[in-house]
Amino acid sequence: MAPLKKEAKEEKVMGITVKKDEDPSEWYSQVVLRSELADYAPVKGCMIIRPYGYAIWQNIMDYFNGVMKKLGVQNAYFPLFIPESFFGKEAEHAKGFTPEVAWVSTSDEEDGERLAIRPTSETIMYDSYAKWIRSHRDLPLRINQWCNVVRWETHAVKMFLRSREFLWQEGHCVYETEEQCELETRLILKEYRRLAEDILAMPVLTGRKTEKEKFAGAKRTYTIEAFMPDGKAVQSGTSHNLGQGFAKAFGISYLGRDEKKHTPWQNSWGISTRLIGAMVLLHSDDKGLVLPPTIAPIKAVIVPILFDDTKDAVLNKCNEIKTQLFREFNFDVKVDDRDEYSPGWKFNEWELKGVPLRIEIGPKDMEKKQVVIVRRDTGDKEFVPESKLLDKTKELLELVQENLFKKAKKHMENSIVEVKTWDEFMEAAEQRKLIKTTFCGEIGCEEKIKAESGGASSRCMPLDAEKAIDGSICVKCGKPAEYVVYFSKSY
Amino acid sequence: MAPLKKEAKEEKVMGITVKKDEDPSEWYSQVVLRSELADYAPVKGCMIIRPYGYAIWQNIMDYFNGVMKKLGVQNAYFPLFIPESFFGKEAEHAKGFTPEVAWVSTSDEEDGERLAIRPTSETIMYDSYAKWIRSHRDLPLRINQWCNVVRWETHAVKMFLRSREFLWQEGHCVYETEEQCELETRLILKEYRRLAEDILAMPVLTGRKTEKEKFAGAKRTYTIEAFMPDGKAVQSGTSHNLGQGFAKAFGISYLGRDEKKHTPWQNSWGISTRLIGAMVLLHSDDKGLVLPPTIAPIKAVIVPILFDDTKDAVLNKCNEIKTQLFREFNFDVKVDDRDEYSPGWKFNEWELKGVPLRIEIGPKDMEKKQVVIVRRDTGDKEFVPESKLLDKTKELLELVQENLFKKAKKHMENSIVEVKTWDEFMEAAEQRKLIKTTFCGEIGCEEKIKAESGGASSRCMPLDAEKAIDGSICVKCGKPAEYVVYFSKSY
Repeated sequence: MAPLKKEAKEEKVMGITVKKDEDPSEWYSQVVLRSELADYAPVKGCMIIRPYGYAIWQNIMDYFNGVMKKLGVQNAYFPLFIPESFFGKEAEHAKGFTPEVAWVSTSDEEDGERLAIRPTSETIMYDSYAKWIRSHRDLPLRINQWCNVVRWETHAVKMFLRSREFLWQEGHCVYETEEQCELETRLILKEYRRLAEDILAMPVLTGRKTEKEKFAGAKRTYTIEAFMPDGKAVQSGTSHNLGQGFAKAFGISYLGRDEKKHTPWQNSWGISTRLIGAMVLLHSDDKGLVLPPTIAPIKAVIVPILFDDTKDAVLNKCNEIKTQLFREFNFDVKVDDRDEYSPGWKFNEWELKGVPLRIEIGPKDMEKKQVVIVRRDTGDKEFVPESKLLDKTKELLELVQENLFKKAKKHMENSIVEVKTWDEFMEAAEQRKLIKTTFCGEIGCEEKIKAESGGASSRCMPLDAEKAIDGSICVKCGKPAEYVVYFSKSY
Repeated sequence: MAPLKKEAKEEKVMGITVKKDEDPSEWYSQVVLRSELADYAPVKGCMIIRPYGYAIWQNIMDYFNGVMKKLGVQNAYFPLFIPESFFGKEAEHAKGFTPEVAWVSTSDEEDGERLAIRPTSETIMYDSYAKWIRSHRDLPLRINQWCNVVRWETHAVKMFLRSREFLWQEGHCVYETEEQCELETRLILKEYRRLAEDILAMPVLTGRKTEKEKFAGAKRTYTIEAFMPDGKAVQSGTSHNLGQGFAKAFGISYLGRDEKKHTPWQNSWGISTRLIGAMVLLHSDDKGLVLPPTIAPIKAVIVPILFDDTKDAVLNKCNEIKTQLFREFNFDVKVDDRDEYSPGWKFNEWELKGVPLRIEIGPKDMEKKQVVIVRRDTGDKEFVPESKLLDKTKELLELVQENLFKKAKKHMENSIVEVKTWDEFMEAAEQRKLIKTTFCGEIGCEEKIKAESGGASSRCMPLDAEKAIDGSICVKCGKPAEYVVYFSKSY
């Protein structure tokens, strides 16, 4: 390879040109684009999930399919198209979704009714549930689908976090009793929390949404809320106790153990590709993407230091280590054996792509029977004897995962400010804090808070601690407070 | 449980009420609906894939993801919406798809251009490929997506086989050379054949499509064609060598090893939920669904024969066997321990659902340390000593798989008739044969064949044996024949 060519190619490497804390919005776009997680689509408001980003989504799907299997949830697939009349059946639901629905027009004139492109599938699924459910023996019914949904928002696209089409899972279950319904609605919330915290290293607040923020048609909405370094929250998963409203609207009933007809209880719950956006925002840095090892498609990259006379020996060693790490721990490891790039260029590229560990091996390392391991999260570098490489790799991956979680958790906890007055609220909102306060619960009052604070919205009421103590007052209107609520700006 | 209730429930079991060879269309609908693979949707032309059907699709996805990983194909996700202008860029492609495209209408007036709901994704993917591909180092590029696609057909829905929305995978690869492109286009065909034959026990013809039947915009289309017991073929997977047409239309080029700009070569290939429909049509019988063991979500069902005094012991034995089969062979086995149904009712239900093997265990069997195993495909019943149960189960599953394939293969081979004259052709078409003949290759002549024969269309030209020998003439027009072609009616 001629030196000229190598330099020409190497000039094209694009790192991140802005700092995370100076221009978070531009920084985020650069990280997503240049690490090749995703790209803008030629269609307004849409995105393309590239293979590296899709591999993360696949890992999330695989993990959560395992969780659902244990819970007895089965996957299915319902149509993309929903007849317009279905939306009208549950009044609150219709109000909540109509503004952002995209409609299909076809050459097929006889079709008559307009068809919506699903923004969520409660209505079309429950129409079938009404046919399928006859007896208590058919319950609980637990069905999930992984699919694309469309919400025709007018906001500019923010890849993964906000786009007109996104991928998600939506679980829809039916139960005999209110108790079981509520129990499993919360069980799912717990599983979402576990996914966020244990897999994505993303600490979350868990709690219930206020009346204003709950799902259109739900009795109660539970949420996991992640808190970003720039002081904005990301709603990262919701689980809704739907009560009996949809069941009544769609005529779902069952013959009970008492031989009488009953109306069942329902829940629905979802997580989406938004989780990837939150994770990227949370962990990544000025050098690019930082991926938690548990979700990373490539756990470690091995970069050989190549010289003509030792090339084969070094490459053999690299491949041997890769094979051992896969055999021993099932770790996906990549050997970057391209010889048109220098080691330095490769170091930058894999840092940009957020691979948790880099293993460097050159002829001198081989002589000393050692390797160099560099952590992506801290940049810490250490020499590791070959004999300890396997265990050390495993240990370091665990440390990276733990470190990312702890750092984020500390930031979230340090951001929580308890306020009692509107002045304190405004000051905390200005400082992008996670504001804990007492609140009357009124939709109108919450709208005022959001408008006057420049966008602070309620995130959730703390789980199992949502009631304000007697005598406390609403931070905004001064009326008696009903709830303890977290407020913050949000994505 | 009171007997009255039991009988009331048992009355509701619905088996298949028509015979496969008497009313194949009604029979097929009943098999799909009553085995709970799928259901009609409340939206015209659409279907719902129920959990039992989706589990089969999941197995197909898992298998084929493994194949693609070995071939270096990565999964990604592109938008559902395609700007109208994109379709126009490749003229043949536009002509082929425009009639069946569904369009989106939204409240968002400024959008301007109409958006299509993807009927296939060549255009939107290749627009990005033009951005992403710069150098020969970026090739080969091999991307696949699993997604839903929409074709606004006017035919009545036939679940899995024909519906306005279906699920599929579409692979889209780009190569430096024509040779590699053609090689991999055929490699995929070979993998499709393996999936059909080894996994779905569905023998297929492989070959090239005629000019009339090839994919709109392709240079060459290869296909796998399955042949059904009612004498109709199902096109079950296609792999297209796209040549350079799309690359030129979308401006995809790369800087070659010679430092000059070149136009790359492309292919695309897909299989869909149609495969499930073909498999159901092929193997199932008058009692309902018959599933090949390799793809069956439940490989065997264990039905305990329960009496009050021995119930616990028998159920324990059933669960023990289930666990052993999972541990030893990773077989998913179900114990049907519902006590509101009689064993006979359960036998019927699991036959309807096509589970390959039924294992019966009662107290007398336990005394004799044996079980009864019944094959779904043949109905053969045998007593098996407990000590040989594990190996016997494995052996029988292999035999069922093999038997289904052999039976179908024999039918296909026996259906092939070679004809030389139009009279022979018409007679064979009348008898629903798979007609092998010689053909001029003209689109107009093929249209006449289809119209006059009552629907016989060309299926494919035999792989690597497509040229007619010198001197042979076209079965229809009598001009010199170019090709050897299989014709038949089709789904």
